[in-house]
Amino acid sequence: MEHVIDRCRFLAGLSEEPGYTTRTFLSEPMHAVHAHLRDWMLQAGMEVHTDPVGNLRGVYPSARPSARRLFIGSHLDTVPRAGAFDGILGVVLAIALIESLRGRRLPFHIEAIGFSEEEGVRFAIPFIGSRAFIGDIDDRLLTTISDAITAFGLDPSRIDEAQTSGDALGYVEFHIEQGPLLESLGLPLGVVETISGQSRLEILFEGNANHAGTTPMNLRQDALAGAAEWISAVEREARAVSGAVATVGRVNVTPGAGNVIAGSAALSLDVRHPADAVRHHLVARLLRCAEQIAAGRCLKVSWEQHLDQAAVAMDTDITQLLERAVASAGRPVHRMASGAGHDAMIVARRMPAAMLFLRSPRGISHHPDESVLAEDVDAALDAGLHFLLELERRYA
Amino acid sequence: MEHVIDRCRFLAGLSEEPGYTTRTFLSEPMHAVHAHLRDWMLQAGMEVHTDPVGNLRGVYPSARPSARRLFIGSHLDTVPRAGAFDGILGVVLAIALIESLRGRRLPFHIEAIGFSEEEGVRFAIPFIGSRAFIGDIDDRLLTTISDAITAFGLDPSRIDEAQTSGDALGYVEFHIEQGPLLESLGLPLGVVETISGQSRLEILFEGNANHAGTTPMNLRQDALAGAAEWISAVEREARAVSGAVATVGRVNVTPGAGNVIAGSAALSLDVRHPADAVRHHLVARLLRCAEQIAAGRCLKVSWEQHLDQAAVAMDTDITQLLERAVASAGRPVHRMASGAGHDAMIVARRMPAAMLFLRSPRGISHHPDESVLAEDVDAALDAGLHFLLELERRYA
Repeated sequence: MEHVIDRCRFLAGLSEEPGYTTRTFLSEPMHAVHAHLRDWMLQAGMEVHTDPVGNLRGVYPSARPSARRLFIGSHLDTVPRAGAFDGILGVVLAIALIESLRGRRLPFHIEAIGFSEEEGVRFAIPFIGSRAFIGDIDDRLLTTISDAITAFGLDPSRIDEAQTSGDALGYVEFHIEQGPLLESLGLPLGVVETISGQSRLEILFEGNANHAGTTPMNLRQDALAGAAEWISAVEREARAVSGAVATVGRVNVTPGAGNVIAGSAALSLDVRHPADAVRHHLVARLLRCAEQIAAGRCLKVSWEQHLDQAAVAMDTDITQLLERAVASAGRPVHRMASGAGHDAMIVARRMPAAMLFLRSPRGISHHPDESVLAEDVDAALDAGLHFLLELERRYA
Repeated sequence: MEHVIDRCRFLAGLSEEPGYTTRTFLSEPMHAVHAHLRDWMLQAGMEVHTDPVGNLRGVYPSARPSARRLFIGSHLDTVPRAGAFDGILGVVLAIALIESLRGRRLPFHIEAIGFSEEEGVRFAIPFIGSRAFIGDIDDRLLTTISDAITAFGLDPSRIDEAQTSGDALGYVEFHIEQGPLLESLGLPLGVVETISGQSRLEILFEGNANHAGTTPMNLRQDALAGAAEWISAVEREARAVSGAVATVGRVNVTPGAGNVIAGSAALSLDVRHPADAVRHHLVARLLRCAEQIAAGRCLKVSWEQHLDQAAVAMDTDITQLLERAVASAGRPVHRMASGAGHDAMIVARRMPAAMLFLRSPRGISHHPDESVLAEDVDAALDAGLHFLLELERRYA
C-alpha cells in the first residue's frame, strides 16, 4: 500500500528540528502527529483517545461489546535525526489493516496503539509508553516525566488509566528490522520469536605507558596491543556461536599519544543472543580470553558488568498464528531473533505478544536514509489480514 | 660520584611549578640553574658565558691557546613534571669530569655546554639550543623566540654568536637511556652508534556504523575489528625486524558508542629503526598489511605520512674511542641505537658527535620517578676520564 509509506513520510515532517525527523516523548510536534493519526483512525471507524502517558489509542470495536481485545501498535517517538519508519510504521500499518477490513466487524475488539515513548531520548529512560500500558511506572519515573505530561495537556495523576485492562487477547507489533538480515536472505518479512538478551560490560587493560622510541618490542606492556588481540578474539568467538553478536564499539586509550605506548585501554563490550545461557557462556569465554591475553602480556585486566538483560520470548501461540498468516499470504516464512529491544518486549510481561519484521533496505535505521519497500508493506498488510482472519475463525 | 646526583636533584627544585620539575626554554628558574652551574664551572677553573640563545657555556682551556675544542654537554630544559636527570645530568657530568682533572691541562680545550632548549615544550619546536649552536636558526624561528630571549636579558640580534667556530674536535653527550634496555641486560652504560630514524603516519579504517544488536557478525564492516587486526600485525611485524619498534598509541573510533559498530577508526603509527631502508621497508609492509586486512573485510583504508626523519649515525672514530674508554674503565661495552632524538643528532650535522647512555632504572623517564644509579654515574665518569686521556694521547 503506497499510502502507508506516504503517511509515514508525511508524519516524518512533523519534527522538533527543521529538515530532520526528531520527535521525542510528548514534544510539541507530537500534537500534530496525534491529530493526523486520530483523523485516519476516525475515518476507519475507530474510537480514539489519548491516555495519560500520551499513548494514542484507537479502538475498532467488535460487534460483541464483551469481546476480548487485540492490540496492534508500536511507538510514535524517534531518535534525533531519525528515519521515517522506525516505530510509526507499526501504528500506520495498524490503521491501514483496520481500513482494509472495510467496516467488517470481528469477534474481538482491535485497539491500535501508538506508544508515546520507546527510544529513551528525552529522559534517558526507554519504553515509557509501553511501561505505563502494563502498569510499570513507579513514583520516581512518574516524578521525572510529570511536568512533560502536564505540559502536553494531560494529567499525570491519572497515569494508572494508561494501564490495559484484563481483556487482552494479545499484542502484535509490526516494525522495520533495523538490520540487514532479511535483505541478505531476500525475504520481505521475519517472524520474531525472541528478543535477544543483552550483556554490556566495560573492560580495562592496564600496562605501562612508555616511550615509543626507547622501549624495545620485547620489553613492552602495551595495553592497546593486548586490547587489539582481545577485540579480534571477541569477533572470532562471537562468529563461532550461531546467532550471537558481540561488539566492541568504544576504545579509550591513555595517554593516547602517538609516541607513547598505551598505558591503559578501556573498551565497551556488547553481547546479545536469543538464549541467555548461550550469552552468559559467551561472555564468560570472552572474559577468560581477556585474562589469558593479559597474563601472556604481563597486563592487568578488570571489568564491570553494566547490564545483564534477559531474552524475552514472544508468545508461541500468537507467533505460530502469525507464521501461518505469512504463509497464507504467500510469503516465505522466516523465524528470527530481534537483536534490538522493542515495545513488544515490555508488553510481553502482561499479555501474549508477537512481532513481525519488515525488511530494512541496506539495514539502515536511525538515519534519514532509513526506508521500507512498498512490496514489503503489502506483504505485511496481507499477512496482517490473514492473521485477523485466522483469529476471527478461532473466536467465532 | 654522589655529588653529581645531589646536584641534579638540587637543580630539579628550580622549577616553574612548585612540587614538580618543569623548566622550559628561558623560563624564570633557568636564571637560577645558570647561576649554580656557573659557580660550579668557575670553581672547576672554567671561563663561563651565556650565549645569545641562552646556552650556558664553560670553557676549560688547554695550555695551548690554538688547540682544538671538545664539547661535552646536553640540555638544561625539561618536559612538564619531569624527572631530575633527563638532560641536566649530561651537563653536571661534564663539570664533574673537568673537576676530576684537578687542574691538569689537556692538549685541547673542553667546553661544557648546557643547551637552553631540547624538549620543544615552550614553542612546540625542539632543539632550539643546539640548532643555534650549529647556526640553524632561520628568521621565522628567530621571530618566534625573540621576545623570550630579550625577556631573559639576552640579545636576539646577536644569535649568530651562539654558533660554534670551526675549531671543534667533536661533541660528546652523556644522557640517561630513557628506556629499559640497559637495565634488562644488566649493563651500566651503552655507547650510542645511531639515533634511529622515525616515521609517523595516521591510518584511517572506514567501515559501516551499524546497530550492534541487529547486524549479524557476517554482515558487518567493523572498522575497529579491522584496526585491531592491524594493530596485532604491527606488533608481529615489528617484532620480526631486529632493532625495530612500531607503536600504535592513539585510536579514535567513530561514533564510539558501545551499541554501535565502529564506522571508522583512526590510528597513529610510529616506526623507528637505526637503518632508514629497514624502516621504510617495514612501514611499506605495515601499509600492505592494512590494505590486505581492509580488502578482506570490505573496509576502506587510507593514510597520511606526517614524518619521515632519517637516522643519524654517530661519528665512527669518536664512538670507537668512547667504546675503548668504557672498556678501559673496566665496564662492559655495549653498542645500541637511540630510539629518541637528542642534541647529539643536531650537533652531528656540524662535527663528529658521540653519545654515552646511562642505565635508566625501570626505564622510567619524563616522570618524577626518573632516576639514575650512583654506580652508573661512577662508570660514566670513569669512562669519560679514560676518553679524555685517550684524546690526550692522540693530540699530545
